[in-house]
Amino acid sequence: MTNKLRFLTAGESHGKGLMGILEGIPSGLPLSSEDIDKELKRRQMGYGRGGRMKIESDHAEIISGVRWGKTIGSPISLLIENRDWKNWQEGMSSDEKYAGSIPPVTRPRPGHADLAGALKYGHKDIRNILERSSARETAMRVAVGAVAKKFLSEFGINIGSYVIQIGNVKISNFKFQISNFKEIFKKTEESSVRCPDEDASKKMVELIDTAAKKGDTLGGVFEVFATGLPVGLGSHIQWDKRLDGRLSQALMGIQAIKGVEIGTGFEMAERFGSEVMDEIFYSSQQSAISGQQSGFYRKTNHAGGIEGGMTNGMPIVIRAAMKPIPTLRKPLRSVDIITKEPFEAAYERSDTCAVPAAAVIGEAMTAIVVADAFLEKFGGDSIEETKRNFNSYIEYLKQF
Amino acid sequence: MTNKLRFLTAGESHGKGLMGILEGIPSGLPLSSEDIDKELKRRQMGYGRGGRMKIESDHAEIISGVRWGKTIGSPISLLIENRDWKNWQEGMSSDEKYAGSIPPVTRPRPGHADLAGALKYGHKDIRNILERSSARETAMRVAVGAVAKKFLSEFGINIGSYVIQIGNVKISNFKFQISNFKEIFKKTEESSVRCPDEDASKKMVELIDTAAKKGDTLGGVFEVFATGLPVGLGSHIQWDKRLDGRLSQALMGIQAIKGVEIGTGFEMAERFGSEVMDEIFYSSQQSAISGQQSGFYRKTNHAGGIEGGMTNGMPIVIRAAMKPIPTLRKPLRSVDIITKEPFEAAYERSDTCAVPAAAVIGEAMTAIVVADAFLEKFGGDSIEETKRNFNSYIEYLKQF
Amino acid sequence: MTNKLRFLTAGESHGKGLMGILEGIPSGLPLSSEDIDKELKRRQMGYGRGGRMKIESDHAEIISGVRWGKTIGSPISLLIENRDWKNWQEGMSSDEKYAGSIPPVTRPRPGHADLAGALKYGHKDIRNILERSSARETAMRVAVGAVAKKFLSEFGINIGSYVIQIGNVKISNFKFQISNFKEIFKKTEESSVRCPDEDASKKMVELIDTAAKKGDTLGGVFEVFATGLPVGLGSHIQWDKRLDGRLSQALMGIQAIKGVEIGTGFEMAERFGSEVMDEIFYSSQQSAISGQQSGFYRKTNHAGGIEGGMTNGMPIVIRAAMKPIPTLRKPLRSVDIITKEPFEAAYERSDTCAVPAAAVIGEAMTAIVVADAFLEKFGGDSIEETKRNFNSYIEYLKQF
Amino acid sequence: MTNKLRFLTAGESHGKGLMGILEGIPSGLPLSSEDIDKELKRRQMGYGRGGRMKIESDHAEIISGVRWGKTIGSPISLLIENRDWKNWQEGMSSDEKYAGSIPPVTRPRPGHADLAGALKYGHKDIRNILERSSARETAMRVAVGAVAKKFLSEFGINIGSYVIQIGNVKISNFKFQISNFKEIFKKTEESSVRCPDEDASKKMVELIDTAAKKGDTLGGVFEVFATGLPVGLGSHIQWDKRLDGRLSQALMGIQAIKGVEIGTGFEMAERFGSEVMDEIFYSSQQSAISGQQSGFYRKTNHAGGIEGGMTNGMPIVIRAAMKPIPTLRKPLRSVDIITKEPFEAAYERSDTCAVPAAAVIGEAMTAIVVADAFLEKFGGDSIEETKRNFNSYIEYLKQF
Repeated sequence: MTNKLRFLTAGESHGKGLMGILEGIPSGLPLSSEDIDKELKRRQMGYGRGGRMKIESDHAEIISGVRWGKTIGSPISLLIENRDWKNWQEGMSSDEKYAGSIPPVTRPRPGHADLAGALKYGHKDIRNILERSSARETAMRVAVGAVAKKFLSEFGINIGSYVIQIGNVKISNFKFQISNFKEIFKKTEESSVRCPDEDASKKMVELIDTAAKKGDTLGGVFEVFATGLPVGLGSHIQWDKRLDGRLSQALMGIQAIKGVEIGTGFEMAERFGSEVMDEIFYSSQQSAISGQQSGFYRKTNHAGGIEGGMTNGMPIVIRAAMKPIPTLRKPLRSVDIITKEPFEAAYERSDTCAVPAAAVIGEAMTAIVVADAFLEKFGGDSIEETKRNFNSYIEYLKQF
Repeated sequence: MTNKLRFLTAGESHGKGLMGILEGIPSGLPLSSEDIDKELKRRQMGYGRGGRMKIESDHAEIISGVRWGKTIGSPISLLIENRDWKNWQEGMSSDEKYAGSIPPVTRPRPGHADLAGALKYGHKDIRNILERSSARETAMRVAVGAVAKKFLSEFGINIGSYVIQIGNVKISNFKFQISNFKEIFKKTEESSVRCPDEDASKKMVELIDTAAKKGDTLGGVFEVFATGLPVGLGSHIQWDKRLDGRLSQALMGIQAIKGVEIGTGFEMAERFGSEVMDEIFYSSQQSAISGQQSGFYRKTNHAGGIEGGMTNGMPIVIRAAMKPIPTLRKPLRSVDIITKEPFEAAYERSDTCAVPAAAVIGEAMTAIVVADAFLEKFGGDSIEETKRNFNSYIEYLKQF
Repeated sequence: MTNKLRFLTAGESHGKGLMGILEGIPSGLPLSSEDIDKELKRRQMGYGRGGRMKIESDHAEIISGVRWGKTIGSPISLLIENRDWKNWQEGMSSDEKYAGSIPPVTRPRPGHADLAGALKYGHKDIRNILERSSARETAMRVAVGAVAKKFLSEFGINIGSYVIQIGNVKISNFKFQISNFKEIFKKTEESSVRCPDEDASKKMVELIDTAAKKGDTLGGVFEVFATGLPVGLGSHIQWDKRLDGRLSQALMGIQAIKGVEIGTGFEMAERFGSEVMDEIFYSSQQSAISGQQSGFYRKTNHAGGIEGGMTNGMPIVIRAAMKPIPTLRKPLRSVDIITKEPFEAAYERSDTCAVPAAAVIGEAMTAIVVADAFLEKFGGDSIEETKRNFNSYIEYLKQF
Repeated sequence: MTNKLRFLTAGESHGKGLMGILEGIPSGLPLSSEDIDKELKRRQMGYGRGGRMKIESDHAEIISGVRWGKTIGSPISLLIENRDWKNWQEGMSSDEKYAGSIPPVTRPRPGHADLAGALKYGHKDIRNILERSSARETAMRVAVGAVAKKFLSEFGINIGSYVIQIGNVKISNFKFQISNFKEIFKKTEESSVRCPDEDASKKMVELIDTAAKKGDTLGGVFEVFATGLPVGLGSHIQWDKRLDGRLSQALMGIQAIKGVEIGTGFEMAERFGSEVMDEIFYSSQQSAISGQQSGFYRKTNHAGGIEGGMTNGMPIVIRAAMKPIPTLRKPLRSVDIITKEPFEAAYERSDTCAVPAAAVIGEAMTAIVVADAFLEKFGGDSIEETKRNFNSYIEYLKQF
């Protein structure tokens, strides 16, 4: 992030709700709760989730920054109330008088923030950590990302995602291309695991069932893509201006993500240079295929849309690996932080797989980073101004 | 980065030199040019480099921030002069009178910042982009990282790296463990490709020779590790405080890096949850194996030292995939930005493989991010103060 | 600000409410709504306010970051509902369907953000600007500042303020000194204009009455002080680390503030150097008078507690000049932004003077900046850790 | 600052030199060493300076970011060598072997960073503080500011300053107005104390002579103005986006500045609201007087060009109060930090007054802040792009 957009989120998993403030969106952007709730719903779906998803059905209340259906330039603030707050009013109260109303959590779960957080922040009740480290927090990231998406859509930029792997089941028939992204979009939304390949989709569901039966959990890999990007977002001039780095932070900073790759990624490391460079072509007609605004275009996209830390006009393609959910019914060994006694952690209720949801969160974080880089380049305090600036750049590209 | 440490670098590949300013290092840290030059030398080595590395032998001149062998708290500024500046005094002069003294570069190389940069910044001479996007810039990152390393070493934190893959040759006999990291350190420094596995090392050299003969290039994968870390660097409380995200940006932001993974990374996505969580144990004696300061310890390190965006006391293990060098002797198709005529780009002089150097740069960036998170937690304006704070935390951990 | 503390506020004057997120306060700080509401109430008092203050009686709801009376380390989020939202539900709705339900504001008021904001953000309805630029927003700054104050109080740091001038009536009998700050505190809270000098206080009230009768408005000057500060907050090493600059931004960034001075301020410019330097003394007993932690102390405080951009152990003393409220019953000439016709702006309802409230806001902003600099120096993720670090520094100072 | 421009400076007063890196200036800006040296020279002049100014004659070497007379978009780095480095090579060496080659400074000067800095950073040799806290550092700020000025001049924005008070001598015949700013510019540059009023100028020189004879020092007040600004730089939407606050930090963050006011400033606090608001007028011809781009204009400028934290199209007028130089020949009492013995500090060589130089530094800091806000609004990676965006906004303003 470069401070052109700024956002902070707050809120505990079983607290009153999640809050978010996003600053820097120009005035005049059409925006409604529905725009946001639509994305929140996408996050809540996906085969392999436990019971909680059903009770939640998140709704983002727009507290500020939007009037009569349009942003006004002031900070956009959002509130997502937790639907089961009524059951936690005492246990999660800010009021001292409820201290001790529910027993402390003293058993850290491997793979979570529990132990490191308790030690860092000096807590003897791990609930004080897990309430914030929970992936529940990502609902607000998705809400903020929905605003970023809406902003980008004004400029013809679309961001989508799909699941390419759950456990050891990998997609085989599909590969993102500029020509098939609408099909991918459609098929993904129809799949319960957000995978556009029907065969793989079916096998993923089966694997989830198998894991659920064993009380085990699964991770996977999803791919986020962004189309319609102008050339030149991000920069090579300083390490922290590079868009690949900024995207990488945004994706790796999602709970449970342990790997990120752009374009051909790790596979590129195995290949020869002559095999993986995206050669440059030119057509005096603006290329319909590439969507690039200048006449220059590529036939391949090994780079995943980014060269030298900048968008090169091709779609951004970025993949993230999610580890299996660390809360499982199968017992894991751990140690009580008070008694120091070992125990075996087993959890009755748990999701089996959350990769489809993670893909939606990945879209949100990608949208935020891209919108930030976009505003960094084009400036503007109203959508009209940003559009004037954007359009004059596109015109310049055509003349280059 | 959290602004506790701030740094900016500047400088063009064939300009007068590279400059860097690092702010936020406490006073009283022993520091010399030798500390920095040692790391610069490590960056310059590695089998597979072309001719330039030989002429360079970088030296960082400390311009400010250090007096009589110790930092004084003011910004540390460094200057690495370019040894072949004499040949570029006119071509890269800041003076208008030399305009046109060398012909413009109008042929963008696929895989580089060349085309995107020229379009973004409005240049008809691509030299104005490639001079800054060049990996030459990373020399200053290594210099800044050397200071961060020196700082961390005061607290028993060591950062190293080794190459685990070049092209399709992968290391097989070595895996980073806390018990073998000193051996890895040693063997790596002895290997011309910075690979501690002698067999793999040999095959890597052969593959580089083969590629060189064909005029082709290679990428690979390196692993960076950090040992001796206290539990609790980074935080789960906000997406951009997470250490995994910050490390990921730092590594992905290195030229030619296209993938980053932490701990078991992408492999984790294939496995069941029950297989990849690092179970928690406790010993009333401080664990010699884990190096953790509290009695809690792990026997495995799938998480790569980070849970919930925080260090968990285990070593950080992070891998990065580097694409093959995009400048090759084998021709690649491209288009002249002036004439719009296609041409085949072929370069007489080129490195074949730079993965060993990239690993050293990865160490530097890791050191900077870790030092930043360290100072964020422990504060302090002098090494003595930071040490008092650090030691009292370690003492607290023991009592937890 | 240095990013150690981060906060964003949001909310419109007649919207649903004000939101704020504050990140970076360590865990374990006792905090309740009452701590915040107490400060909100202080902001709402003061002779010279119009009707709105009476209906409001602000209450900050803690949405997150506090559990059972203590901070838990996660972001603290606050919501202050607007009590008259029911009257504005349509006029300020985020929903498009209420568009046009109240007439647009097209008449910019001189002295406000109205015209510049409408031009910058492209609004034809000035309400889209004035709703955010209104001083109503400062309620959230005071709420956030209340948390910062509570944090600082754990370390014996107190922040107060008093009014020293309203219009041309100036305080004459009081001058802040370390020896009288408790008396100032007490007398100020008893005065309806927050002025500890009873004579001046009375004259200020009279002047406000006079101005009100004429339909005119008044500004004034207030002084903020902070006591109990350790030496060494802020730094000389970079322009934006200097505490005086950071405080200055925080105070000048309050609505209607047009001047800021530290210590003797502008008066210093008239005097000789030999008259205004705070000479340095030493006592082996910790000085009771100065409150300084080392044996070094001063007998004067021309510097207002800051030398070289750092606290020097003396109280911070900072003054801010507030312009008269620009919305007045007396007509001011302006131009309709749609018709371009001139008109005379006159407002039925208006405050006459808001300097007492501004002083409270000044305290809040001072507290936030000081807390930020404090955490920058001492670090720590729990109050216990920050205290350990702070105490060991105080101990070191004694030994210096 | 908003991170659109970033800069860091480094360097000690008697070290090798001063370094600076400025990032974020678009490509294509004409820039030469002369542009910078011209400003450095202005900083070095002014009646009342001691001997050092004569030996220095600063020159900024452009190390990077400029090629053939134009910026290329990469970070601009500058080096100002210290001319008397040869005398300090050992005393200020970074090399440990020269440790102790000059005696430590153990006597803190009241009014300087000396004591607070030594305590904060743990130094027993105050030279480690005073070398960086020295106003010598401002040479680099002036150099960076010269680049910002050059950038702004491309858009018709000019920044100037003049001294309005030295000690108790105040300017009486001149007041900044848009109609006389060129005259002020000219007369100021001719005056040895940078005061456009010849009478006052003469008296200021006399006062400096008197003070010098007594071994005393003087401060004063200077005014910085910026003309040609578009309406809408800065913003009301968040406390730290307000341009008045940002300017205030920039000026208060200059060594020895103790007060800042904008427009009528502190005087405004004494007046009635009806007297100090800048009424709004409209003319269908673009107003020649105001220089505002829309038809709206003002006849007065009490606000100093900023309303609601934004430029309103009138010139920015900002004043800063400088305290007298704290190093004087007249003795001041202080205490040795080692022996704790009191002593009387008297300095043989000292400047008597540095207000004219401070005014030039004030211009530089103003230019940097304005350029940052300008780029924040208009974006652009090349001057051409920024101009396109700027011009289309001006066109829009005319149509508003």
